[in-house]
Amino acid sequence: MNAPTAHQHLTPALAPREVPAELIAALQARFGANCSTALVVREQHGRDESPFVHVPPPAAVVFAESTQDVADAVTLAAQYKAPVIPFGVGSSLEGHLLAVQGGISLDVSRMNKVLSINAEDLTVTVQPGVTRKQLNEEIKSTGLFFPIDPGADASIGGMCATRASGTNAVRYGTMRENVLTLEVVTASGEVIRTGTRAKKSAAGYDLTRLFVGSEGTLGVMTEITLRIYPLPEAVLAAVCSFPSIEAAVHTTITTIQMGVPIARVELLDGASVRMVNQYAKLNLAETPMLLMEFHGSPAGVKEQAETVQEIAAEHGGVSFEWATTPEERTRLWTARHNAYFAAIQSRPGCRAVTTDTCVPISKLADAMLDSIAEANASGLHYFLVGHVGDGNFHVGYLIDPNNAQECALAEDLNHKLVTRALNLGGTCTGEHGIGLHKMAFLRTETGEGAVNIMRTIKRALDPDNIMNPGKIFSL
Amino acid sequence: MNAPTAHQHLTPALAPREVPAELIAALQARFGANCSTALVVREQHGRDESPFVHVPPPAAVVFAESTQDVADAVTLAAQYKAPVIPFGVGSSLEGHLLAVQGGISLDVSRMNKVLSINAEDLTVTVQPGVTRKQLNEEIKSTGLFFPIDPGADASIGGMCATRASGTNAVRYGTMRENVLTLEVVTASGEVIRTGTRAKKSAAGYDLTRLFVGSEGTLGVMTEITLRIYPLPEAVLAAVCSFPSIEAAVHTTITTIQMGVPIARVELLDGASVRMVNQYAKLNLAETPMLLMEFHGSPAGVKEQAETVQEIAAEHGGVSFEWATTPEERTRLWTARHNAYFAAIQSRPGCRAVTTDTCVPISKLADAMLDSIAEANASGLHYFLVGHVGDGNFHVGYLIDPNNAQECALAEDLNHKLVTRALNLGGTCTGEHGIGLHKMAFLRTETGEGAVNIMRTIKRALDPDNIMNPGKIFSL
Repeated sequence: MNAPTAHQHLTPALAPREVPAELIAALQARFGANCSTALVVREQHGRDESPFVHVPPPAAVVFAESTQDVADAVTLAAQYKAPVIPFGVGSSLEGHLLAVQGGISLDVSRMNKVLSINAEDLTVTVQPGVTRKQLNEEIKSTGLFFPIDPGADASIGGMCATRASGTNAVRYGTMRENVLTLEVVTASGEVIRTGTRAKKSAAGYDLTRLFVGSEGTLGVMTEITLRIYPLPEAVLAAVCSFPSIEAAVHTTITTIQMGVPIARVELLDGASVRMVNQYAKLNLAETPMLLMEFHGSPAGVKEQAETVQEIAAEHGGVSFEWATTPEERTRLWTARHNAYFAAIQSRPGCRAVTTDTCVPISKLADAMLDSIAEANASGLHYFLVGHVGDGNFHVGYLIDPNNAQECALAEDLNHKLVTRALNLGGTCTGEHGIGLHKMAFLRTETGEGAVNIMRTIKRALDPDNIMNPGKIFSL
Repeated sequence: MNAPTAHQHLTPALAPREVPAELIAALQARFGANCSTALVVREQHGRDESPFVHVPPPAAVVFAESTQDVADAVTLAAQYKAPVIPFGVGSSLEGHLLAVQGGISLDVSRMNKVLSINAEDLTVTVQPGVTRKQLNEEIKSTGLFFPIDPGADASIGGMCATRASGTNAVRYGTMRENVLTLEVVTASGEVIRTGTRAKKSAAGYDLTRLFVGSEGTLGVMTEITLRIYPLPEAVLAAVCSFPSIEAAVHTTITTIQMGVPIARVELLDGASVRMVNQYAKLNLAETPMLLMEFHGSPAGVKEQAETVQEIAAEHGGVSFEWATTPEERTRLWTARHNAYFAAIQSRPGCRAVTTDTCVPISKLADAMLDSIAEANASGLHYFLVGHVGDGNFHVGYLIDPNNAQECALAEDLNHKLVTRALNLGGTCTGEHGIGLHKMAFLRTETGEGAVNIMRTIKRALDPDNIMNPGKIFSL
């Protein structure tokens, strides 16, 4: 495993393929004003939240408004063997949206309808451009909610593509567990369905799970059926401050090992709490903190919270504070969700190199503490947040993307941190995906054998390598 | 969708390929006494619990004792392009183990070691021949358990291959949700790993989920890492009798829709309770019955059970009885698990044609009631059990496999039942797999487009079609 250099870090391997003028003309003929070649539009679709800032934009952007639009765009691109990059809201962190091999961006953000709400079955079917907040707004009146909540208000399509999760995953699972079936436009432009609305199935290969997490490299999702959940009868949120990261982490480990069905357990370090306080005008104690939530019956959440309070006290946790009103809870969780943006704003012009390792829960302290010591020693600004109940945490090194030394330093810290997690039996990415940034780590993590199986599947399903080429693995 | 005829039903399409004497000789040279060509051994490996009884046995049986054994056997078979059929304990219901294209049976039942128990991470790694009961026995002292429980004491490898579930799936999920990572021998004899022990991951294609449910057609699993769970602090089981199937089903639907975290909710009809009573010397009321279990804290399980008792009462449920001691509970659940064998024994010499549809929960009554009326009108003996909390139920038509008329009648009932479930948005198989019996239904369920994707993956990963050929789909 070779660490990328600072230069490679900011400019990934580019291998642009020619996009013929005939294709652009054909797309313009088919899509009219919904096919744009304006530089500002292309540039907006040629970047994301990753630290890669020096990649040329796609040749055109097609705004799809229906499954047929997607099928037609892909069919045309396939005729000319031009890359197609699906685009939701642009909140990817790993360079998934960047046109490293040229091609067209296929923006599905206008496919933003909630198609059907089956409240009595606890399912909902949406178009890929629906965002997670929009979805929860539209199903609110049913008393149901969709729990998966990455930091950004991401599109459901993008969340499927990267197998996203968030703060509720410790109890409700990730996109892997919560997508029931998909409609997908394949690399040949064919529309297929991967399954049914049944809660479980043993009917053939699990195509749903194959497309979830495939980062747009196998097809474009055009309809997504999700599991949704009854809003819990009672919700209790709590904040607890700790004398050290270690104490907070060990409180989490014990909570999980005891089987407490905690719904959320999030770690922030003192510096991150400070950034959040400044950004959201809060007065949280600027020490390592666990932000927790319990879902269940009134008696059940009280019982869970008391158990965790006892565990926290044994580890030196102090000022265990309750937030029971919806307003208090919303304020706290909004602050947590804005931690990334709070950090970015704390240093104008910076980008974040964000780590995303996930390790078996007993290894969490081992995975985190040395990495934090290294980050402290480096002198770089950084933030630290974690979905610690799942063994997943993020260090975001805040770098000036034009400062090669900072880039190299961040890459070096990232490399050490990921290597440590892999050695502890973990993964290089818990929820952000491989994209451009973790391709070398994937090979180390699973071995060439598994990556070769992925390559074989990719070649078989997309023989001309037009679907988001250059991501996850090289061919 | 064409219903198979009675003749097709008992004798699936056979296309035996020659197994060269050189291959047998090479396997005998490599495996010695662990390669058997004795007729009794071959015949034992040429059948399962499916109604298919007229298929010639495999040419030889190799008993693998290690990953290297599996890799060597597959490598040799690949050289001669001979089919390889993985074999666990032989409890498959859909003909998965039958040598419809000839070849060798690869018995992994001697690979029955629990390799590591990571109690602090709630994971365990086993060889594929470990059975579910053995696993729970070996981890009992840790205070943890593995919840997935198909009726038979199946092997973990077989349970992965068919994406099995059972009575606890309504709360703990199926093999889909509970396999963390696999070691697999691919069709070329290469050993790969699909993932890590991290609870969640966004690292590339979800190969774990691709192999889970692939029915031995893509490779042989040689190591399986599973999630395990803390034994609940409190467990409460309850039995409730109902005046009708409908009342029991509607009680279940309301329970699920209200979000009660029930751990098990199983339906038996009156005739099935009678068979169970006779087989297990019990005195349960011989009316439609729900058998339930609640897991949690003492206060939590009481709260859940009271909620369900109220719902049941509204639907006419009577004699809600508690079973709180472990002995009582074990007696009840053993009886439930033996329902299949109780039914088979109720009619000596019979086989069961077992349905396995799973529908969205709101459609469960629609899916069941007309099918039961049809079964009653047919005059066939049958049993009815259901993992109703998941929308999954089984009707087992008890037929004399040598009586063509009974076979045809059972197939006709099965065809109507599955068609009804598919029209209601369900799947033809919730947990048994496609095997030989549901290949036509799979095409109707997902459409040719999705099946073609499966075929493309199969051809790419197993170009000579040696891994359990002729199952799931035709090529």
